[in-house]
Amino acid sequence: METRTDVNEFGEFGLIEHLTKYFVDQNPTTVKGVGDDAAVIDNNNLTTVVSTDMLVEGIHFDLMYSPLKHLGYKAVVVNLSDIYAMNAVPGQITVSLAISNRFSVEALDELYSGILAACEYYKVDLVGGDMTSSPKGMVISVTAIGSAPKENLVYRNGAKAGDLICISGDLGAAYIGLQILEREKQLFLDDPNLKTDLEDQQYIIGRQLKPEARWDIIKAFRDSGLIPTSMIDVSDGLASEIFHLCKQSKTGAIVEESKIPLHPDTETMALKFQLDPVTCALNGGEDYELLFTIDPNDLGKVRTMDDIFIIGEMVEAEGGIKLKTTSGNLHTMKAQGWKHF
Amino acid sequence: METRTDVNEFGEFGLIEHLTKYFVDQNPTTVKGVGDDAAVIDNNNLTTVVSTDMLVEGIHFDLMYSPLKHLGYKAVVVNLSDIYAMNAVPGQITVSLAISNRFSVEALDELYSGILAACEYYKVDLVGGDMTSSPKGMVISVTAIGSAPKENLVYRNGAKAGDLICISGDLGAAYIGLQILEREKQLFLDDPNLKTDLEDQQYIIGRQLKPEARWDIIKAFRDSGLIPTSMIDVSDGLASEIFHLCKQSKTGAIVEESKIPLHPDTETMALKFQLDPVTCALNGGEDYELLFTIDPNDLGKVRTMDDIFIIGEMVEAEGGIKLKTTSGNLHTMKAQGWKHF
Repeated sequence: METRTDVNEFGEFGLIEHLTKYFVDQNPTTVKGVGDDAAVIDNNNLTTVVSTDMLVEGIHFDLMYSPLKHLGYKAVVVNLSDIYAMNAVPGQITVSLAISNRFSVEALDELYSGILAACEYYKVDLVGGDMTSSPKGMVISVTAIGSAPKENLVYRNGAKAGDLICISGDLGAAYIGLQILEREKQLFLDDPNLKTDLEDQQYIIGRQLKPEARWDIIKAFRDSGLIPTSMIDVSDGLASEIFHLCKQSKTGAIVEESKIPLHPDTETMALKFQLDPVTCALNGGEDYELLFTIDPNDLGKVRTMDDIFIIGEMVEAEGGIKLKTTSGNLHTMKAQGWKHF
Repeated sequence: METRTDVNEFGEFGLIEHLTKYFVDQNPTTVKGVGDDAAVIDNNNLTTVVSTDMLVEGIHFDLMYSPLKHLGYKAVVVNLSDIYAMNAVPGQITVSLAISNRFSVEALDELYSGILAACEYYKVDLVGGDMTSSPKGMVISVTAIGSAPKENLVYRNGAKAGDLICISGDLGAAYIGLQILEREKQLFLDDPNLKTDLEDQQYIIGRQLKPEARWDIIKAFRDSGLIPTSMIDVSDGLASEIFHLCKQSKTGAIVEESKIPLHPDTETMALKFQLDPVTCALNGGEDYELLFTIDPNDLGKVRTMDDIFIIGEMVEAEGGIKLKTTSGNLHTMKAQGWKHF
């Protein structure tokens, strides 16, 4: 009998590793292939940085509560975030779209008004794409192209034991925002006349529906002359991203629970949902903050920057990846991360 | 009442034009945005060329007759074809994939073995992508990144009246191949015990299932020092591509029906299907040949190249876009092109 292995046995990253293991880079211009936030291509002078993400209706977004304009904005932002996570600056995007015939031109106008708003705010150009029909639902695939001088690029693999682990903002809000939206959707489906109660949670709902990419942090790095030793953006939750940095840098890490930044609204609402706020930060995802490590000698440069929280330290690989609880205990961290299949 | 405009009122190109009309390029590195085979980004030295295509199950491919390995190969080739159509050389691709859980790892292995075969044959590197689940079916989005010295790039808008119109190979076979596959699928659905009869049509079925991109033509251009005045690849049918070149170059064209290259198998099978072979060439699509124009002074360079057919001439815009029949009559050409919605 033919073997049938379920894709869930691998998970996203395992599956990508499995499927790409026979691919060998052939071009001297390919500086970095699969396995970082973005690919890096050499042009002698500047390097080109390329990242791509696909958003699928029913998996990544629900049009019952995602306004199309926000969706267009977010589809761009999540890709730009990957370019910034290389310490590069995005310049162009392509947008490919598959849509069923239930979408009108007016609906697409809404979507593109969000894409345009993101292009204008982040100063990137829409330079191409594809548009096709789909038997059902909407799929958006965005590719972002950026550039950086080669010596400025920051990969996932440059951290060393002793480096400080930093994060650019609070975590977990996007996940809690999603919980509120899902709850309201369910209540609406049960009784369409019921008034929605978003509990005035603009901040956390905004973190879910209209995230921003941290270009201001990249600018602050440039202004202060700081180049992090490793960097990644938080799309799958802090724990998963810490694991990526440690795996590729061949280090361990200690993250201090008490230092993980949480917005007060996130804490309040997490407790209402009977969720541990720190677990939301560790495993929630979609915060699009920058997680990076710095040489301890660069501490002075980071101290003067807004919005930077030092949450732990890289250690030797033998030390493992640990969460130091507020009571001082060390627990082995688990990365749930992404589970879409 | 809210207006609801059906997307079919615009068609693909009209819709793209409509949706992107408010986008203004902001970056000096953006040499060419929406509206050619690929976008062009300046790096001072080499220019980067980016193209992206999305293939949707049930729209662009049918897994009942598309082997997954061929599908992977084709998904890469159609993108590389766009890069070659800029007279550039592809170096890297990204592949994003949305799949429902009906696909096993073994099925994805098949798909990626085709992607790998294309990468190896065309010497491009897989440098990134995304992998996600889909509620239903498969969507593949490929982005190809290439490069070329700026002065070598060939756009759609450089043709002038008097330029010769050339094509790199025979047309219509991919469309007839699809007709055979569709017929056999229908017969199989009606009676699964019936033996399929592909009538030994390897050539035309191969043109549909495993097309190739014409890197050999780009190499021949380089070897002979020829730079076409305009170029596009034939994905939507000859008529549609002629219209693109004329519209962007602000010219008319006369195409001679008798000069349009047709493979003997295409002619034979078209007649069996009671189709006009020339109509298949004009409106069939998916041939991935290069359609280009040259200055008449470069005729000598083209004469020595294999596989180049001169099929007509660019004229002043007032002349319109005409097909000169074998009997010598001039008919206004119609571009059906792409109709997926």
